[in-house]
Amino acid sequence: MEQSARTNQDLTRELEAMGNRLRIDSIVATSEAGSGHPSTCLSAADLVAAVFFYAMRYEVSNPKNPLNDRFVLSKGHAAPILYAAWAEGGAFPVERLKTLRKFDSDLEGHPTPRIPWVEVATGSLGQGLSCGVGMALNSGYLEKIDNRIYVLMGDGEMAEGSVWEAAALASYYKLNNLIGIVDVNGLGQSQPTMYGHDTGVYHRRFEAFGWRAISVDGHDMAQITAALDEALSVGDKPVAIIAATKKGKGVSFIEDKEGWHGKALKKGEEVDRALAELEPGAAVTGALKVKPVKERGAQAPPAGEPASSESAPVQYAMGQELATREVYGAALAKLGDTNPLVVALDGDTKNSTYSEKFMKAHPDRFFECFIAEQNMVGTAVGLAAMGKIPFASTFACFLTRAYDQIRMAAISQSNLKLCGSHAGVSIGEDGPSQMALEDLAMMRAVEGATVLYPSEAVSAEHAVRLAAAHAGIVYIRTSRPKTPVIYPVDEPFEIGKAKVVKRSDEDEITIVGGGVTLFEALSAYDVLKAEGISARVVDIFSLKPVDAETLRECGRETNNLILTVEDHSLCGGIGDAVAGAVSADGIRVHKLGVGEVPRSGEPAELLAAYGIDRKAIAERVRALLRQAGQTREPDDSARG
Amino acid sequence: MEQSARTNQDLTRELEAMGNRLRIDSIVATSEAGSGHPSTCLSAADLVAAVFFYAMRYEVSNPKNPLNDRFVLSKGHAAPILYAAWAEGGAFPVERLKTLRKFDSDLEGHPTPRIPWVEVATGSLGQGLSCGVGMALNSGYLEKIDNRIYVLMGDGEMAEGSVWEAAALASYYKLNNLIGIVDVNGLGQSQPTMYGHDTGVYHRRFEAFGWRAISVDGHDMAQITAALDEALSVGDKPVAIIAATKKGKGVSFIEDKEGWHGKALKKGEEVDRALAELEPGAAVTGALKVKPVKERGAQAPPAGEPASSESAPVQYAMGQELATREVYGAALAKLGDTNPLVVALDGDTKNSTYSEKFMKAHPDRFFECFIAEQNMVGTAVGLAAMGKIPFASTFACFLTRAYDQIRMAAISQSNLKLCGSHAGVSIGEDGPSQMALEDLAMMRAVEGATVLYPSEAVSAEHAVRLAAAHAGIVYIRTSRPKTPVIYPVDEPFEIGKAKVVKRSDEDEITIVGGGVTLFEALSAYDVLKAEGISARVVDIFSLKPVDAETLRECGRETNNLILTVEDHSLCGGIGDAVAGAVSADGIRVHKLGVGEVPRSGEPAELLAAYGIDRKAIAERVRALLRQAGQTREPDDSARG
Repeated sequence: MEQSARTNQDLTRELEAMGNRLRIDSIVATSEAGSGHPSTCLSAADLVAAVFFYAMRYEVSNPKNPLNDRFVLSKGHAAPILYAAWAEGGAFPVERLKTLRKFDSDLEGHPTPRIPWVEVATGSLGQGLSCGVGMALNSGYLEKIDNRIYVLMGDGEMAEGSVWEAAALASYYKLNNLIGIVDVNGLGQSQPTMYGHDTGVYHRRFEAFGWRAISVDGHDMAQITAALDEALSVGDKPVAIIAATKKGKGVSFIEDKEGWHGKALKKGEEVDRALAELEPGAAVTGALKVKPVKERGAQAPPAGEPASSESAPVQYAMGQELATREVYGAALAKLGDTNPLVVALDGDTKNSTYSEKFMKAHPDRFFECFIAEQNMVGTAVGLAAMGKIPFASTFACFLTRAYDQIRMAAISQSNLKLCGSHAGVSIGEDGPSQMALEDLAMMRAVEGATVLYPSEAVSAEHAVRLAAAHAGIVYIRTSRPKTPVIYPVDEPFEIGKAKVVKRSDEDEITIVGGGVTLFEALSAYDVLKAEGISARVVDIFSLKPVDAETLRECGRETNNLILTVEDHSLCGGIGDAVAGAVSADGIRVHKLGVGEVPRSGEPAELLAAYGIDRKAIAERVRALLRQAGQTREPDDSARG
Repeated sequence: MEQSARTNQDLTRELEAMGNRLRIDSIVATSEAGSGHPSTCLSAADLVAAVFFYAMRYEVSNPKNPLNDRFVLSKGHAAPILYAAWAEGGAFPVERLKTLRKFDSDLEGHPTPRIPWVEVATGSLGQGLSCGVGMALNSGYLEKIDNRIYVLMGDGEMAEGSVWEAAALASYYKLNNLIGIVDVNGLGQSQPTMYGHDTGVYHRRFEAFGWRAISVDGHDMAQITAALDEALSVGDKPVAIIAATKKGKGVSFIEDKEGWHGKALKKGEEVDRALAELEPGAAVTGALKVKPVKERGAQAPPAGEPASSESAPVQYAMGQELATREVYGAALAKLGDTNPLVVALDGDTKNSTYSEKFMKAHPDRFFECFIAEQNMVGTAVGLAAMGKIPFASTFACFLTRAYDQIRMAAISQSNLKLCGSHAGVSIGEDGPSQMALEDLAMMRAVEGATVLYPSEAVSAEHAVRLAAAHAGIVYIRTSRPKTPVIYPVDEPFEIGKAKVVKRSDEDEITIVGGGVTLFEALSAYDVLKAEGISARVVDIFSLKPVDAETLRECGRETNNLILTVEDHSLCGGIGDAVAGAVSADGIRVHKLGVGEVPRSGEPAELLAAYGIDRKAIAERVRALLRQAGQTREPDDSARG
């Protein structure tokens, strides 16, 4: 007993020493970089030391081991201490910490998965817990792995609502494998946080959100390890460890002082003074290691089943009328039959997005995320980080709610799939708050994202399959109205390829549409045909990458004249994508789209009112051809 | 006493009857429309009747009266009962309710300020409380008006984190004039809410977030009015009334039943049955009116001071190096000296966005909103709805967090001003999570928004003044690095106007830049000049509206050749804006921009790595001119 007590004291001393070692590493790295956030590393140092070298079980040489516990640094600006912990844990040489923030180093200013020990990028605050929820759902519900997900948060980021969205969902799903740690250092970037050193506020809030909260002195190693032990034994809910800390802890001239948020200590006197204060406490090094996963005696992970984007054949008849949103759900459900990695999430709109079809077919792989889009996307990113292929859906306009999470997903190199339904004014009477008119612009601007916009059932089903088979973020835009099938079931679809729907050698102009406007364009085609005007009609299908080659070819063959029509803002959607792609070739792109805040009404009324219906298209085509004729006439006469 | 008790009973009966009257109105209107959400109106009916005809003080004939209490329907899909309450309160004829959702009616599917009794659009859930916070700050802190702000929320939307951001800020600022009411009907759109009829969860959460919570039976009028009375007497914090209700209350075949979320009752038998159940209870009509504001005896509102966008003269010297973010703060502080309507908000980045300059000059008109961007923007929309000119700032990348609020602000016809700092890769070492590369695309797609991108101090100061003077949403993008002043202090700037910075008759190509890339373009200009290549250089300044006229003219005068360069994604920013504007004229637009997820590094390294620095520009210009020459050559020889 006495022996054991002494051993515990030794371990505590070693962990304390490791805390100071991490402090030193963080100061040295940021000073070398000449920028960064050392003070927030110092408040978190003892917590990080305890998680890494006491609680966490992780095969450092194999970050992909599914049995590993996971650690998410939600307060991403403390990146230096994360890198320090991995380095001290043997992931890479400690010396490499001095490459922090350099262009040729993967130790970036905020964590990104350029290093394999980081699964999700952080740095936009308040997102880590959502990713942790996704990881915990994966372990607890899908893979039945008995590991733990640790998420270290700052107190400043507790002001972000997304944290509370995640907290609510975590307790709803009883994620007892999720352990949140809040580093309450009381200081934000520009002033004290809302509650300063009052840890009780966070304690009460987590309890009210269905968590078990444990409050500790975040610089008392015995208290920290006891809390981490206790966290393992809470069986029915997630656990929040609320740690009272001091920013800059251990360095007297910055400890608990304002004005040191994003500031490195100056090399020379400042650093020397800091190290002189810290080094004595870092002397007891011991032989701390990250605990291996084997010791747990957990069951083996399930054998990885091969990912497949094959599913039962497409079976829609030409002319059959279906909404692409319905087809999304049906195709996803089918895909789930053959690909066990496909999972789905929705934000209480599953009966509108039709993701409920997947839920009914695969209830164990569907997660209702309720009306909390930020957390839905963050959770999906967490699931993707664990190897799943998550499809998250809601009204396209409500995906704007999660734009920061989507942006960060790109930095996370995430395999996230998004479906936004109810595109544009064609939804009708519900009015502008429910109409997505910005989603194409928003998603096109996400680095590396693929943006697909199917117009009918066959292309919609292919869009879902292509999304699953493609590595990276894919967005699928679906529509509310029914549209007729126009492609044979064996029509090949590719990311980056448009479809030429109407083509003749006499075409005088190319009309490019997508979704409902493709069918308006086809109606305009008929009207114009009857007047002796021949138009080429292109289904854009892939907004990003956009099919510059086909568009260029069509433009060249039709008087260098293209008219785009979209149920979307005139900025950043089909028109800009096409103009941006082919204007370098001197092709003239004219745009029709929604140029004002729309109102409620019947879909057809609204398409007409905002100038994107068959009539508006036909009129514009006539005007453009008249203009082109006039422009050509003087040239002709000049030549004559 | 007995008399009073009887009177109270009479009043209660009259309010109950009004609740049923509103139910009937909601059913009739939605049935007439053939769509809508009657069941959620029925759960809220008694609460709405009590707020409108018992608690609220409002001059119905003058919705602009600053002494009015305010009512925000956060659960916007209950729009029919909002319209019904205003109609029964005398705002407009009850008969007009039958125009619900029709194209020529202002009674839209979800509330918008097309009717003057609605100050902020709702329909994207979880945003109303933030707007209420803005209104309450206006009354409590700015105008010192003793009125009340009522916000009616649904239980489903309590899953949105933005609600908890607002809740936290409301108690932080001790907004005792803010009364939130949660209609806990237990049913969401696609299934029961997370907690069904358990009102205790919401009660505990609001208490934990620093509110006084009062739980009531939401169909017991005496309990409701007692809670509304009690709410007036809680002096030190906001009040949440948690009301247990039933969706579809009063109509037996839909009451508390799933599957009736977004479904109108069918005209004929369904409606008849419902009305037969409700009409007896709606018989005691009494003479209920909305209480006038006069009875309160509140002090007169402060005399409206004239808005002015004039401020002290711009005073920067040519060549002086300043970051546009610094100038933003300084210009805003100056503007505040002469325009008392200007207020500022920030999300704990005020020492980076430099909004702290405004805070120091005008502490009473600055609101720290902490790290909660959604609520910051929603609060600003609330302030704007009360006549203020709110400037909300944070890192531009974090404005993505509030995209849904910004989208809704457009529908609210809001006078919202946003400033996003730290544009693009030029921020350097902090890495991609802190780099805005999507903000221009995002903001351009907002209907009616103005997007300004000043490159140096003089244009930045003008951007702030133009924003304040312009009615509507304006976004200003600022940069981290210092840039030299290139415009004289009296240079005129306009929304929608670009600046031609270098021009000669020999120009062979036009280079369009903004922010740091304008200076890269100017450096490339010098290099090319030395090689005998003359380039025109344009400062885009206004992205939306974009200056198509100047761009067209420049393009035409320079071989129909434009090269755009931007520290932004290649999608939806400067390149697409320019191509979208001038490709119709056959001008060839080539684009340079950031085409992948960037990494940490020094600003100059990153500009080079992602191909948007002076060298990349000069190389591309040479290549384009070589190409153009080659293209021209065959033509020339053919002619020859």
